[in-house]
Amino acid sequence: MRVGVFGATGAVGKELVQVLGDRGFPVTELRLFASTRSAGTRVPTPFGDKRIEVYDPATPPRLDLALLAVSGDWSKAHARQLVEAGAVVVDNSSAFRLEDDVPLVVPEVNAAAAGNARLIANPNCTTAILAVALAPLHEAFGLKRVIVSTYQAASGAGAEGMQELEDGLREVLAQGGQATNKFFRHPLPMNLIPHIDSFQPNGYTREEMKVTWETRKIMGLPDLLISCTAVRVPTMRAHAEAVTIETERPVTAEAARRILAAAPGVKLVDDVENALYPMPLTASGQYDVEAGRVRANPVFGDRGLDLFVCGDQLLKGAALNAVQIAEALPVRLAA
Amino acid sequence: MRVGVFGATGAVGKELVQVLGDRGFPVTELRLFASTRSAGTRVPTPFGDKRIEVYDPATPPRLDLALLAVSGDWSKAHARQLVEAGAVVVDNSSAFRLEDDVPLVVPEVNAAAAGNARLIANPNCTTAILAVALAPLHEAFGLKRVIVSTYQAASGAGAEGMQELEDGLREVLAQGGQATNKFFRHPLPMNLIPHIDSFQPNGYTREEMKVTWETRKIMGLPDLLISCTAVRVPTMRAHAEAVTIETERPVTAEAARRILAAAPGVKLVDDVENALYPMPLTASGQYDVEAGRVRANPVFGDRGLDLFVCGDQLLKGAALNAVQIAEALPVRLAA
Repeated sequence: MRVGVFGATGAVGKELVQVLGDRGFPVTELRLFASTRSAGTRVPTPFGDKRIEVYDPATPPRLDLALLAVSGDWSKAHARQLVEAGAVVVDNSSAFRLEDDVPLVVPEVNAAAAGNARLIANPNCTTAILAVALAPLHEAFGLKRVIVSTYQAASGAGAEGMQELEDGLREVLAQGGQATNKFFRHPLPMNLIPHIDSFQPNGYTREEMKVTWETRKIMGLPDLLISCTAVRVPTMRAHAEAVTIETERPVTAEAARRILAAAPGVKLVDDVENALYPMPLTASGQYDVEAGRVRANPVFGDRGLDLFVCGDQLLKGAALNAVQIAEALPVRLAA
Repeated sequence: MRVGVFGATGAVGKELVQVLGDRGFPVTELRLFASTRSAGTRVPTPFGDKRIEVYDPATPPRLDLALLAVSGDWSKAHARQLVEAGAVVVDNSSAFRLEDDVPLVVPEVNAAAAGNARLIANPNCTTAILAVALAPLHEAFGLKRVIVSTYQAASGAGAEGMQELEDGLREVLAQGGQATNKFFRHPLPMNLIPHIDSFQPNGYTREEMKVTWETRKIMGLPDLLISCTAVRVPTMRAHAEAVTIETERPVTAEAARRILAAAPGVKLVDDVENALYPMPLTASGQYDVEAGRVRANPVFGDRGLDLFVCGDQLLKGAALNAVQIAEALPVRLAA
């Protein structure tokens, strides 16, 4: 299969190439696209050294699958052209996620939604990580309300965000005071920034509303009562989320644990006696989303549940989910 | 006034001495107590150099006010003896907080609860920071449900916790891999640990239940529906909390902002157009608790509100609150 990765030098792009290799995706030809800045450089991949190309809209490449890890603007400008040129496109940006004719897919939750679409959207990282844990709980107990507080890693702002955190920490440890910041709105080292993406008129950030809008679409629950507080924290690449749900039917921690233990894409890490629970330290680099700290929340009588989830933002939150979407389309892609 | 600070070499003890000086507390004699490890050393204070003493239960010092920043075990063993020897005791530990005959006080919320007590408990840091923001909202709108997710700094584990975070960050930046850990259960650098204090049979940690138990007692709302997820994050000394409330009466973000702007001990920091909201970077070293990101939460119809608060764990979360308690008792102490 002829596969193109767009934004191949970014944090998500690099993971896309790695995940394609690690999962044995049937790549016959791999082409890597990035900005002119890195054009011409050669990078090692599981499929051999590849040269970075610059996409030329005048001569779109012949691809079976295009994985886009670029800006929403770039996707808006070029994704449909790549489809016209023959590719199935999986887009990581937010450009098409809420378009009616574009499926938004987390394969463990709504693989069938992809249908015959040739342009498929990959959800926001926080949403993808959340959805794999929420979906089985919804099936078992029915979701009525969902309240989420996030602990989002620097990787959500790409390779530059990760570098800025690392450089900033060095700076603070060497000189004290505050780190300089450029990609983040405020210095992130030793700090928390409750501001990801732009503010909306309702006081929520766009990142927070993405969790609401996208979770509803992925789960097919357009009226789900769900809210989010999204906070950038000084961790490197795994997002965590404290989740409180009110269920339609009575729920117990034990029943929820059983459900989560059997859920695809979820690793139940919930052995508090041995201090085992989801953490960035253990979730980073893993495909599965860790879920734990499962307990009945008496704030909602016998219908409340708390849990803590943690997933690799670059994997389930981005690259892995995109490749899983592609894997679920073998017949069409092979055709 | 003869004032003794117990645990004077710890993170909270040092702040107690500083706050007494900064606020011009009427100290006529200051005595500092700590473990044998630092006994005899002299430390500079706003009241001149002082020698660290070791407390001898056989000859309790004559004090008007004893501020305890020691372990719960130490407080249990000695606090009542200090009272018998003539002191009013303000105890930072959790030893007496839930005892019926010991007031648990956040002066902005329930100063009168101190009554004529000679042993007064200072609340858990997360609870003190939360209570100053919740109390005015309760008065205005009535609290029905409260759901809190915390972002707690290393200082909550004392000076050793702060040092371990700093040393661990240096280690990770120099060598990669994981930092060594001793005071925290897992390495904290670049990590999140959803485990503070011991686990209870209901699946919540003791830290999380303290927020429930102590908030109810301070606010005089024994049946308040309130739950917490407590997470240690790699910040240094300010705790943040994402708070969702359901109110008894309709609430708007604007009305809530007006209430918080006028609330004692609260600084409204909520100008999202200029990227101003509560952060450890700005809340650290400040007396007031920052509150912001105030917005209506539609999950609870017209009775939902989200806010984000951030307060210095060593100040409002400990030393400042203890000194404020003492300040509210001038007549008795001067007698």
